[in-house]
This record gives sequence, structure tokens and C-alpha cells, in this order.
Amino acid sequence: MKRSQLFVKTLREAPADESARNAKLLIQAGYVYKVMAGVYAYTPLGLRVLENIKQIVREEMNAVNGQELVMTSLQRKETWEVTGRWDSDAVDIWFKSRLQDGTEVGFGWSHEEAIIEMMRQYIQSYKDLPISVYQFQTKLRNEVRAKSGIMRGREFVMKDMYSMHSSQEDMDQYYDTVIAAYNCIYERLGLGDSTFVTFASGGAFTKFSHEFQTICEAGEDVLYMNQDHSIAVNGEVLDEASEELHVDKNSLEPVTTAEVGNIFKFGTDKSEKMDFYFTGEDGQRHPIYLASYGVGITRVMGVVIEKCSDDKGLIWPEAIAPATVYLVSIGDIEDEARKLYEMLQNSGIDVLWDDRSVRPGEKFADADLMGIPYRVVISPKTLENQVVEYKARTSSETELLSHDELLKKLHDTKH
Amino acid sequence: MKRSQLFVKTLREAPADESARNAKLLIQAGYVYKVMAGVYAYTPLGLRVLENIKQIVREEMNAVNGQELVMTSLQRKETWEVTGRWDSDAVDIWFKSRLQDGTEVGFGWSHEEAIIEMMRQYIQSYKDLPISVYQFQTKLRNEVRAKSGIMRGREFVMKDMYSMHSSQEDMDQYYDTVIAAYNCIYERLGLGDSTFVTFASGGAFTKFSHEFQTICEAGEDVLYMNQDHSIAVNGEVLDEASEELHVDKNSLEPVTTAEVGNIFKFGTDKSEKMDFYFTGEDGQRHPIYLASYGVGITRVMGVVIEKCSDDKGLIWPEAIAPATVYLVSIGDIEDEARKLYEMLQNSGIDVLWDDRSVRPGEKFADADLMGIPYRVVISPKTLENQVVEYKARTSSETELLSHDELLKKLHDTKH
Repeated sequence: MKRSQLFVKTLREAPADESARNAKLLIQAGYVYKVMAGVYAYTPLGLRVLENIKQIVREEMNAVNGQELVMTSLQRKETWEVTGRWDSDAVDIWFKSRLQDGTEVGFGWSHEEAIIEMMRQYIQSYKDLPISVYQFQTKLRNEVRAKSGIMRGREFVMKDMYSMHSSQEDMDQYYDTVIAAYNCIYERLGLGDSTFVTFASGGAFTKFSHEFQTICEAGEDVLYMNQDHSIAVNGEVLDEASEELHVDKNSLEPVTTAEVGNIFKFGTDKSEKMDFYFTGEDGQRHPIYLASYGVGITRVMGVVIEKCSDDKGLIWPEAIAPATVYLVSIGDIEDEARKLYEMLQNSGIDVLWDDRSVRPGEKFADADLMGIPYRVVISPKTLENQVVEYKARTSSETELLSHDELLKKLHDTKH
Repeated sequence: MKRSQLFVKTLREAPADESARNAKLLIQAGYVYKVMAGVYAYTPLGLRVLENIKQIVREEMNAVNGQELVMTSLQRKETWEVTGRWDSDAVDIWFKSRLQDGTEVGFGWSHEEAIIEMMRQYIQSYKDLPISVYQFQTKLRNEVRAKSGIMRGREFVMKDMYSMHSSQEDMDQYYDTVIAAYNCIYERLGLGDSTFVTFASGGAFTKFSHEFQTICEAGEDVLYMNQDHSIAVNGEVLDEASEELHVDKNSLEPVTTAEVGNIFKFGTDKSEKMDFYFTGEDGQRHPIYLASYGVGITRVMGVVIEKCSDDKGLIWPEAIAPATVYLVSIGDIEDEARKLYEMLQNSGIDVLWDDRSVRPGEKFADADLMGIPYRVVISPKTLENQVVEYKARTSSETELLSHDELLKKLHDTKH
């Protein structure tokens, strides 16, 4: 990728109409474009980060036998009436509209009822179970306020997975497998050390749900934790959970966190309401055990930024960065710079080459603002010594490296 | 992919509530699930085909320097009022809703006005041009009737690209490059021989637009063609176009076709209305030349089916098939079947292994219905002779091949 061919531009100042740090930085660095509050388009840079996060989540969901599909935004009223979730008194974030013949339709803010309706066509027998399906879907939620940037959008990308089982035991076992898969996801996203599984309030269908909460100043939640962080309890269920875990709730300290995942066991309640049954080995009809597992992809991207950024700009973890190297070429050395660019690309390293005719200072500032993990500078001076200048975004130290040393360094950091 | 792990099931009968052949077959073969008329979810099989088509289109758009981004479904009223396209009298397919504070919003049925509004932030100077950007977007269109299956949906996936230029000449030249790229796309999709670029009516902003039309019984359009198919003119502009091309319109024969792509030159009309200007080398402000290029991804998938299917089911072109081989194992030979499955997968061939405990006849019927390009049968009998039985979906001939011969055959067909 060459900067001269990329249409995005960084802005000198963060936008004044955004209060969230993640949106300020993403707009300033050219990753997103704001359409309205809580509604953002993703430029080629932003889309790359989004796709990198999706790919990590996809790999972990495939590893627990999740089957990827894609459902629809348009929702039938009848699908949601059965569980009482069509009514705006029960769910106040629906966007609704009408077909030309007057039929009311909704736009998917969740797909729980929809997946049950769909899977009824495919599941009849215990032999058809268990099944786990997931999708990446653009959800639409009519939030009253949307002030958290991409952390709480009116339009956002979510991975939602649903697992279906013939018994409580099978569901419980699979649920634990998914918790492990989720931990892998946050680990790979660089949030492993600061992310905790917690008990949360589960609404009508389940006593406790679980949330994955990341310690984050910009978060909207509060976790209560003990000193070694081995216990983390959501504020809204502090009393019940501390009782269940036999800990003194006064020994737990409040910490600000952001939710990065939410998983539920519905058991059979929703299935009973929606006539979602299977025929067992005993020849009888039984309700299907259902659990659901969500990760807000754009939300996670926002949380990563809130945690990984400084006063110079973004700092992407290498696993999701839009490029690994920001190549700065200085002076009249285009041929040599192109050779280096091609060498790096050919060895499997994604490079964003700042080949523009602008001051070096502007290129250095953009390298920092855009948060690409490694900056490599090539100039007449480095060429003279047959080296390049290398600097990690997270470090203030520069190093002079030969091409071979550079390649080795970049490949070593990958693992 | 193993059938025993895939949740989808084929249906004995085509659904009675569909009139379109593409939807009947896709539902029966387990590729899509109908939510409501014109609104379909894609199962893992359907999603694979969709992603394969997207990848072909993506490669061709990248080859003409298109930069992929992703815009939003939610649209501001103000964006579309400028060109008079918010009003339902002008555009009668809007889905609209309201934010909680009463603000009207629309759901993107097109993104022309939206991309201009967005790109205004990034383009100031002639040095910023030309630019070409594209996205894969789920479009929502409130169609009165939706009876053509996935060929005309209320919710569907579209690739839309927009190119911006500082001069008519630059736009014209790029436009021709994209026509060539589109021809590559249809060629790769197996529609090359039956797809034609035609003049079409372009609406308010352009005298003629161009359509890519594929000869197809289920199409909604009529092309007028001469005998060697070197001239193809859309019915709606027959008089004007035959005059322009100096041909006798009575020498052209009507042929039923389906639109598979649509491209427009807006010139500067839309840019002038939307204040989309650049500063030229002369220091003056000039309106930006704009062209747009659409391919309905789901629509193209529907057209492929209408053209490539028989009374037994789907027939996917290899380039977009969800798997290359449908492996049928017969009898108690699971270990040997698994070895073959793994050998094929390891050599880069996507295999759908029908490992279910059902009658061979049922497996053969599904292999045909699902339209996987090659069927490979392994049984105690073939094992005895150290061969497998191979059959192309498009042929009635079977061949007995050794593993090596099979691999060679499958790799040869790829090129």
C-alpha cells in the first residue's frame, strides 16, 4: 500500500464534535468517517483492522466447530412477537419500517429469535444435535445517545454465535469450550491480561450470563475484583455473586471496565416459547437447549484503541494492524525505497509506504498517529551505510539495521 | 467439510411458495433460507458461493486500483435532499425510520450521494485525483414485488464502485478500463460467452449508461442483437442507439436477458449539485467527474443458477462452487474414506464429504442437487481395484481413476 495512492488523509486536529477518544483518533488518523452519531464508515485502513479482528474471531469460532452463515437485517414482526420482544416497550432500540403493502418490518438488533425460527427447518432429531452457527452481521440499534464512538454504535458489526444441544450437560460443556475460545480471542487481540470473565445479570431467561470485561478507563461498567484479580464480579450482581462465591464483597475493589463479549445460556425457556423441539432417542419431543455468544467486533476495536494509544496517536497490536511496517522514504531515493518496499512485501510483510513528497516530520507524525507497529526509515544517509533506521511504535529507541537484520527482526516479532 | 457436521439438509421437494427457479433450487439444496419475499439468509454453503463471487470481483476491482472500504446502511436525510432523491416521489424504494429524537433516517438502497459527501473530506486538489473506491454492501430496497428469488431482493449484496477524476478524458479512459475488468469478472464466473455490454437509459444525469446483460430465460430485460452478437442494444433505447450505431433496428432480434452489471458516467452534474469540487493546476475550483459501477453479487449468483442448472439441481461453475469435490463413501470403509478426504484437502482441493449413514442413492441425488462440480465415489468395490469412481456434474460418464490420476485430473481442470 502506498500513501500516494491511498485516498485517506490524516487531520491536523482531532474532530471537535466527538467526545470519545477512540472516534477522535480514528477520524484524525483516517480510519473511519462519521456519517452521524454512532454511525461510521470504514476507510481502507479501518476496514483492514476490522477484517483482521473478524479473521481472529472466525478462526476461534471455527476451532469450536462453529459454522459460519449470514442472516438478514430485515426481520418479520411475527418472529419476535412470540417472545414478546417486538413491542417497543420491551425492546426500545428497534428500528422499524414498513413494506409497500403496509406490513411492519424491523431491522435486526439481535438475531436470537431469528436463528431459532431458521434452525427449526433443519433440526428434527437428536441426531441433528449439537449444532453451533455464527455470523458477522451489521446490527442496527436505535440508541438514544451514541457518544462512545465505535464502542456503542447505532450501526455496528457483531459476531453472534448460537449453539443448540439436546441436554443441559452438553450445553454446559460446550459453553465452557467457548469461554476458552473467547479467552484465546482476547489474548490474540492483545487484551488477554486485562480481560476477565464475570457473572452478569442475564435478563428473563437465565440467572447469570457471563460477560468478558476489559479494564478500560473509557468503559461504562464497574467490576469488583480481589487483589490478585482471580475474582471479578459485575456491579449489578455483586450481592448475589459474592454470596455464591463465598467472598466478602467489601474485600473487592471497583475497577472501570468495558464489556467486550457477552454469553448466555438460555436453557430451554426460549425454545419452549418458540416451539423449538427435537425428537429424542426415546421417541419423545424435547425442547432444545440454546446458548448464545456475542462479540462486538467494532466495539472491541474501540476498546483496543482506548487501551493502546498515546498522545501521538494509535498503537495497533501487530495482530490487527492494517500494516506491519510504516516505511518512510526521505530524499530522492525512490528506486532504493521501492526495492526495500518490494523486498518486505515479498517476504510476507504488509507495508504502508509513505512515498509522498512531504516533509519528513509530517511522515514521522503520521507514522505515529496511524499507529503502525514498526517504522522503517530509508534516506541517502542510511543508504550510505547500507542500513535502515528501525523503530517500534511503542519504543523511543531507534536502531540501524541491515536489510537482513530488519527482515529477521520483523519475522521474529511475529511469533 | 463433512455432511454429518453440516447442519443444512436438502429438501425432497422444491418449496411451493417460490416461483423463481433460483430460489426454489437454492432452498431445496440447502443454500439459502427464506425469511420473507426477497429476503434470504445464506447457510454455510450459500455463504461460500457468495464469498467466492465477492473474491473474484474484489480481485478485478483491486486490479484497476479500486480501494475497498465499507460505508453505512443508515443514511442522513440531508445527504439525499440536495439531489432531490430523499423524496419518496423521486425514489419509491426507500426504507425509512426515525431516531429516538424524531430525526428521519433512511437505509442505503444506493450510496452515490453518500460517497460524494464522504469523499469531499478527502479530495481538495487535482493531486488527490483520480481515486476509485468500492465496497460490498448489503443494500435495502423496498420493492413492491419480490418474485425473482435472489435476482431481485429487498435485501441483497452489491459491489458498488465510484471513480473520481479531474477531467472527462481521464474518466472516459478509466471507464473503459472498468468495462474490461467487468468482462473479466463475467468470464471468470462462467458467463463470458453470454454476457454483453449494452447501451441503456441513464436517467437524469447521463445520456446512456451501460448495462452488462446476460442471455437468460428468467431475465426481465430484452436485448436486440444482430446475428453474430456483435451488437446488443437495450430495448428501452433501441431507436436512439440503432441510429447512433447506424444499424437497421429491424435487423436486430429480441433476446431475453438479465442485467448483471450497470455502470454510469455522471460527469460533473451530480458533483455540481453536491459541491464536490477540486482545485486545479490553474488554482481554480472545478467540479469532479464521477462515474459509478455496480454488480449485484447475489443477483449474479441467481443468474448463474438460472443458466447453470438442470432437472437434477444446481451446477456450479468451479470458480464459485462451495466445494470442488462431493465425496460419496459407501459401506463400512470410513478409515479409507477419511484418508482420501484428507489427501484431497491437503492437496488444496475443497471437499464436501458425504459421510452420513444414508442410502447411496440419497447421496448421489444430493451430489447432483447441490451442484458440486465433481463427484468421487469410494466403496469396498472401488477399494478392491485401488481406484475411485469419478464423474463431472455436467457429464453422465463415470471413470475409474487411481488416486494419482484423480489428483492430476482435479488439478488440471483448475486451469
